[in-house]
Amino acid sequence: MAKKKPLILVSNDDGITSPGIKTLVEVMCELGEVVVVAPDSPQSGMGHAITVGNTLRLDPSTIFEGIDAYECSGTPADCVKLAKHHVLKDRTPDLVVSGINHGSNSSISVLYSGTMSAAIEAAIEGLPAIGFSLCDYSHQADFSHTAEFVKKIALQVLEHGLPPDIALNVNIPAKSDEKIKGIKICRQAHAKWQEVFDQRKDPYGRRYFWMAGNFVNEDKGEDTDEWALTNNYISVVPCAFDLTAHHALPVLNQWAL
Amino acid sequence: MAKKKPLILVSNDDGITSPGIKTLVEVMCELGEVVVVAPDSPQSGMGHAITVGNTLRLDPSTIFEGIDAYECSGTPADCVKLAKHHVLKDRTPDLVVSGINHGSNSSISVLYSGTMSAAIEAAIEGLPAIGFSLCDYSHQADFSHTAEFVKKIALQVLEHGLPPDIALNVNIPAKSDEKIKGIKICRQAHAKWQEVFDQRKDPYGRRYFWMAGNFVNEDKGEDTDEWALTNNYISVVPCAFDLTAHHALPVLNQWAL
Repeated sequence: MAKKKPLILVSNDDGITSPGIKTLVEVMCELGEVVVVAPDSPQSGMGHAITVGNTLRLDPSTIFEGIDAYECSGTPADCVKLAKHHVLKDRTPDLVVSGINHGSNSSISVLYSGTMSAAIEAAIEGLPAIGFSLCDYSHQADFSHTAEFVKKIALQVLEHGLPPDIALNVNIPAKSDEKIKGIKICRQAHAKWQEVFDQRKDPYGRRYFWMAGNFVNEDKGEDTDEWALTNNYISVVPCAFDLTAHHALPVLNQWAL
Repeated sequence: MAKKKPLILVSNDDGITSPGIKTLVEVMCELGEVVVVAPDSPQSGMGHAITVGNTLRLDPSTIFEGIDAYECSGTPADCVKLAKHHVLKDRTPDLVVSGINHGSNSSISVLYSGTMSAAIEAAIEGLPAIGFSLCDYSHQADFSHTAEFVKKIALQVLEHGLPPDIALNVNIPAKSDEKIKGIKICRQAHAKWQEVFDQRKDPYGRRYFWMAGNFVNEDKGEDTDEWALTNNYISVVPCAFDLTAHHALPVLNQWAL
């Protein structure tokens, strides 16, 4: 008897019209039945935001021929919630994928990432989930080298499932002349963004700011996602949504509370 | 020689005019020199969102008499970044506090919490940080019982500092006839929101949704924040921003990648 085709939910944070989600949908169509629920406009930097105190729109989209797709006015996390509880209802996806993001979500960027918030929301719902990002911020980024790796990783998750309560954060080096060396399982590098605020005056004389930042990585570990990406490997970090710093519990228990 | 007064940065997600931040500012003024940088409008459910691709406003506020305060058009994480890199510049706060939030941020809600994103942003910057929330969503919530506990916990952090790379998530039971039993160091309960989408038609016949949710807790552990709050204790959870699920690394390393 033929195995049932897996059901795959696709979302992202750059919006349903972005080139990155197009590549992801194409690859997923080779692996199973695809349903897309993605934001109707870019949601970069949204972190794990949800829409509270405001309404949500969800409308069918014809952007992917022959595929059941919806565009949503909300955040990536809203998209996954609406997909699970409204669009798919009693059908449970075998896999949830988000991306492919235009730009890296490695290291500390995972916290600010709308791409990963969709994947983590799915993990909270008990679904195997992967966020994919390409380390190239350009809207014209070349995704042609990503397909084989996206497929390989997705197939492994479909085959093995994931340990409970985690989502995978996958980052792929930008296209270059050098061939990608392979895929590495990593920990999140201990790095941060060093913000710079560019202060300007608007035409009415009132000040405003642009936030810009430099990525600062002082973590020299060769088991980190940053090391892998710098050395032209794809990084895979398993991410938890239990934020408890268990090692800190005994320290705090010594306090006079 | 008299000890130098600690410098305390205060932010929140309900906005600079909310009653919760007023209580927090009052308590912090007893402990040190206070600077406030908070959103100019409510930012609930914003998670760890930051403002990318848009400008930020930051204007002085006279809302707290005699206190250096600023209102910001951005998210709670933006507020902390602007405070650190623009408002305070070379001065390093001894403590960053966020809240007091109108509503619980216990268990999985920590991920959606703007209150906690301010605290976690501060932790990323290497600053000791605490997010405070009251388990009462009402704008008219009674904060009168919170002050003594907020002060006690803040004093412990000022005295001991915090283990590196964590922020404290403090939730306080709503005011009731029963006296609060004490303060418990806890882990994040393994619970989730079960969403319900209320579908309606707008006056033009187009559908829209309200997201509503029920909190579902199947974690019966007596070491969780939910257990503490249900039993009228204040919960304190140390939260990490390294999301790596270290226990999953060996599992994934067995895959055929």
